[in-house]
Amino acid sequence: MNPLQPLDNVRVVLSHTSHPGNIGGAARAMKTMGLGSLYLINPRSFPDMEAERRAAGAWDILNKTVVCADLDQALSGTVLAAAVTARSRDLSHEVFDARQGALELVSHARKSPVALVFGTEMSGLTTQEVSKCQIILHIPADPEYSSLNLASAVQVMAYELRMALSEPGPVPRIAGMAARFDEIELLLSHLERVAVRSGFLNPEAPKRLMQRLRRLFARTRLEKEEVNILRGILGACEKRMQTPPPIALGSSGASEEIPGDSCIDRSDENELDTERTR
Amino acid sequence: MNPLQPLDNVRVVLSHTSHPGNIGGAARAMKTMGLGSLYLINPRSFPDMEAERRAAGAWDILNKTVVCADLDQALSGTVLAAAVTARSRDLSHEVFDARQGALELVSHARKSPVALVFGTEMSGLTTQEVSKCQIILHIPADPEYSSLNLASAVQVMAYELRMALSEPGPVPRIAGMAARFDEIELLLSHLERVAVRSGFLNPEAPKRLMQRLRRLFARTRLEKEEVNILRGILGACEKRMQTPPPIALGSSGASEEIPGDSCIDRSDENELDTERTR
Repeated sequence: MNPLQPLDNVRVVLSHTSHPGNIGGAARAMKTMGLGSLYLINPRSFPDMEAERRAAGAWDILNKTVVCADLDQALSGTVLAAAVTARSRDLSHEVFDARQGALELVSHARKSPVALVFGTEMSGLTTQEVSKCQIILHIPADPEYSSLNLASAVQVMAYELRMALSEPGPVPRIAGMAARFDEIELLLSHLERVAVRSGFLNPEAPKRLMQRLRRLFARTRLEKEEVNILRGILGACEKRMQTPPPIALGSSGASEEIPGDSCIDRSDENELDTERTR
Repeated sequence: MNPLQPLDNVRVVLSHTSHPGNIGGAARAMKTMGLGSLYLINPRSFPDMEAERRAAGAWDILNKTVVCADLDQALSGTVLAAAVTARSRDLSHEVFDARQGALELVSHARKSPVALVFGTEMSGLTTQEVSKCQIILHIPADPEYSSLNLASAVQVMAYELRMALSEPGPVPRIAGMAARFDEIELLLSHLERVAVRSGFLNPEAPKRLMQRLRRLFARTRLEKEEVNILRGILGACEKRMQTPPPIALGSSGASEEIPGDSCIDRSDENELDTERTR
């Protein structure tokens, strides 16, 4: 394998960028380190002369930049997405510093696409955007003034990714093929649908159930095969729920009345097992 | 000692910067990582509105920026200066990558001032500027497009300096107090004067002698005490040269005619010894 090839598997995703100059600066920063794949989510202005000026020769990257409507589209096909944030906001995500995060990304990028996700210049990533990523990546900075310019943050991360190529890096925690972002999103939708249909989740008052499940799977780094198994179980549950329960237990068929037979209860057990074996 | 204090001993020196925006970008990059000391050599425009705009809050750094006429002034008081270059140009300098170079700088900055020297946007540092630095520092980049923006290069180095604070780092090769830039410059001037007065160096055709001596001492990392010893020897030689040689050997008193008694010959021996023991 070409030793630089993992960098071809790294997407830089910029969400809702305000200043086109920063898009050009990011493209130039990427190109200096051998990265080439830029995705923009709803940029304020692109293409733009100022972006071209700041790109200073990295026009090939601007020419093939993918403009997306939302983060789901930008992450489709990736197996690991890292949210780059200045603040630490969410203790349920794994947090890496720039160096360790780059090693983690490169270790996955040797096989599959990964993404580095940057928020807007003023307010960074939204909580919802962060929740779609599996890890948080923090660039160490002076806590009293941690306001890195967007293109500078891209430069530091691109540099660390290049440096990470020559490190052995962590061994990926999973043995099989990693599940892609979109496969996991489908699993989560499936799980939510079953949770609602089973009566476990009230769609009028969902609370934070889906958020908790999303984070559980972010930590787990699911394999394709595991997604298939989970969706198989969900599908089987759904089929059983289409036919009415063999014995009518009353006006409501809610799962708490038949706990031994509820697919939601099994999914709860799985969750506990996962937490125990971490 | 405050663990961040070594960063207070690091000067960022920008030589002949063309775009004031890059000065502001560099100040911001420095501040995010806890650096504060900026020196400019003959900037095209400073102070400048564009510098203030790009500094985005790092105005305290711009306000105390020192504008110098030349590199000698900017390096005065430092014990180690690193020339940041994209190209490797000179095999007689020690070359470090950004990470190793940051460790080297921080290890010295724990005791004394050090400098990171950046050239112009278009052509980088001149050969003469590089020759005033003791080490070359190379930011790894894609060889096919290594054109880092100036502020981005400052950002990467400032980041690596901050990261280097938490590393044990190399043990400085010298035990005593490191000699400062200006002390070494005085030694070199002294040596040149003695070389000329002794007849060893023809000032009309100096060739590369001083360049070679400069590089020798760049590698050596002189201690203050060693500079004092060398200057003591030179001073003693000078005094002897003020009186005419006891026996007139002819019209010229050039050193090659009295080799056993020549201070230049001794200095040559020292040079060979230093090269042998490296």
